[in-house]
Amino acid sequence: MGVRTDEGRSGGRPDVLVIGGGVIGLVTAWRAAQRGLRTAVADPAPGRGAARVAAGMLAAVTELHHGEEALLDLNLASAARYPAFAAELVEAAGADVGYRACGTLQVALDADDRAELREIELLRRRCGLEASWLTGRECRRLEPMLAPGVRGGLRVDGDHQTDPRRLTAALLTACERAGVTFHRDEARELTVTGDRATGVVLADGTRVTAGQSVLAAGCRSGGLAGLPPEVAVPVRPVKGQVLRLRIPPGYAPFLSRTVRAVVRGGQVYLVPRLSGELVVGATTEELGWDTTVTAGGVYQLLRDAHELVPGITELPLVETLAGLRPATPDNAPLLGPSGLDGLHLATGHGRNGVLLAPITGEALAEALTTGELPDYARPFHARRFATSENREVPA
Amino acid sequence: MGVRTDEGRSGGRPDVLVIGGGVIGLVTAWRAAQRGLRTAVADPAPGRGAARVAAGMLAAVTELHHGEEALLDLNLASAARYPAFAAELVEAAGADVGYRACGTLQVALDADDRAELREIELLRRRCGLEASWLTGRECRRLEPMLAPGVRGGLRVDGDHQTDPRRLTAALLTACERAGVTFHRDEARELTVTGDRATGVVLADGTRVTAGQSVLAAGCRSGGLAGLPPEVAVPVRPVKGQVLRLRIPPGYAPFLSRTVRAVVRGGQVYLVPRLSGELVVGATTEELGWDTTVTAGGVYQLLRDAHELVPGITELPLVETLAGLRPATPDNAPLLGPSGLDGLHLATGHGRNGVLLAPITGEALAEALTTGELPDYARPFHARRFATSENREVPA
Repeated sequence: MGVRTDEGRSGGRPDVLVIGGGVIGLVTAWRAAQRGLRTAVADPAPGRGAARVAAGMLAAVTELHHGEEALLDLNLASAARYPAFAAELVEAAGADVGYRACGTLQVALDADDRAELREIELLRRRCGLEASWLTGRECRRLEPMLAPGVRGGLRVDGDHQTDPRRLTAALLTACERAGVTFHRDEARELTVTGDRATGVVLADGTRVTAGQSVLAAGCRSGGLAGLPPEVAVPVRPVKGQVLRLRIPPGYAPFLSRTVRAVVRGGQVYLVPRLSGELVVGATTEELGWDTTVTAGGVYQLLRDAHELVPGITELPLVETLAGLRPATPDNAPLLGPSGLDGLHLATGHGRNGVLLAPITGEALAEALTTGELPDYARPFHARRFATSENREVPA
Repeated sequence: MGVRTDEGRSGGRPDVLVIGGGVIGLVTAWRAAQRGLRTAVADPAPGRGAARVAAGMLAAVTELHHGEEALLDLNLASAARYPAFAAELVEAAGADVGYRACGTLQVALDADDRAELREIELLRRRCGLEASWLTGRECRRLEPMLAPGVRGGLRVDGDHQTDPRRLTAALLTACERAGVTFHRDEARELTVTGDRATGVVLADGTRVTAGQSVLAAGCRSGGLAGLPPEVAVPVRPVKGQVLRLRIPPGYAPFLSRTVRAVVRGGQVYLVPRLSGELVVGATTEELGWDTTVTAGGVYQLLRDAHELVPGITELPLVETLAGLRPATPDNAPLLGPSGLDGLHLATGHGRNGVLLAPITGEALAEALTTGELPDYARPFHARRFATSENREVPA
């Protein structure tokens, strides 16, 4: 297939080309355009990334794991930006994003779960977070639909939620209103001229050149053809199956905050939206590119959610879906300059893509305009997995 | 709205108008047309009845319940007709109907289930049916995917299956090829002139007159406006939720026959099609017209099926659906003359609609041409629920 250039089509070469129009690509494009950069996005279906499946928990605290204390700071910083970010986006797009400052209740069902959650309580305290143990009765007073067997839990009043589908739709509108151009096609190959990334060739053969490119293609980021070997993008897909139930008006509110639990070592959460949607998630499966909804995945979610909140049996089951989280070896995102001139990364957000959207947009806009990441983003710089071996392999 | 007549549209008044184009309405229309009767069907979406949800088990023996010995004879008679019926229909429609003479294995999981199944074994023997107990090991030798905990079971080699969606699609084609006319609209009201049913008025106002009418509207049969009170149609909806899984080629055959079990008093079955579809059913819920797929219904099916065949966890879950069985007080269908001249019933087939299609078509064609049901159908005549009270109320 021949290669055409798109100079005419997009009204001049963009300053920034964002490869991937999921929540991270869109927020990066929006923020770049707000800084006065001429911005384009390449994606066959913008807004259809992993966020379409995600529950939208803004779980800075409840997703804290041992050894990820640095990520906690980034997550908390992004969570702190959410109210203003959501308000600005609602204003820019003229559409709601389902932001709900409802908090989270995290509970334990059996003795083992209780022991695990008490460990988590200690970890939070060590990280300077507030954490106070509630009895089972106190948990049920907060959420009367909880199972009688709940043994206790932790109230996490700062872990809120947003609706990822509304969020990406609003980001798409905000981008369009900010003048971002959309190439609704797959980026087939990164083009490198000399030692510099110069854009992409789309699947239809069109060449899109740009001053800088941002690779924000989620779990597919590492597979972009033309990436030189010294740019390490160790992002792998981690499958998550999710259910969407509906809370009929007669059952509302049903739950008044996000409820989650450790059940036999697995995680289950229920995220109640003001729209009446109740999202139940999520499996964690290392199965490569598989996005099949399986009998076993749906069974596990229903079994665990039913154990946690028996009243879900009456609720309509509206949708079953599987998505792919873009995971990295240290569970943290890859942000900013890639080591190849002209190419930034904004990928590998794992289960925190929706949470990290505000701070990622901000950090990437800064990197695109100044060449440097802001201090808070430096621990997550995009070159940290480039080994000397990588660097020695000639492009 | 004015009433128009359709004399021009249908090329003359039909001899027979079938109200309802589900599996029973279609088989009745096909058989009537084959007898030389000019036949029409009124249904907004022919082929979209309860059979779209049904698993298609031809379960004459495994659906035998205490007190339903007369129904057993009808069910067995229809099952005996299936091979020839399916072959004739395949020939007439030029399309497969998924008939599979695979038999059924019915098993018990715990001690209570085992006791219940041994009771069923005795009942079958009393009814002159063959029934010999298999050990758990013998069951697993037949079906290696069965759970290790299976305690034993009964082999029912004559309970086969067909694919109800293919069956109704083939019946629709066969009807069209036999010259049946379709009015793709809802029958709004039965018209009665003097003491005789004379057809219906459709939702769009068209009047369809016919020499004889057959009410075959499934669970909605009793709600047809214009039915005089002396025609008792005590048909109620009984909700059933059903799952469709897919057996990927690498897992085939997975199961080689229908497998069913009593699990904690409930019924669960797995019907493996040659197409790779695996149907898991079904809940039994008395909830009126509700066709909501619920978290609890899907959970119960997956839990019970998983207990029976743990390997289902790997299978894709393709579809969740709920349908309404047309149930009667004695769990048997209502067949033939209704007590109102010119009106026959062919409804109330409960969970046996697909099984009873061949014999219902045959019996109704006989009643439409001779005015009398054949002997085998007489115990299920349509006037058996008409009380003297009904009859005394003036129309």
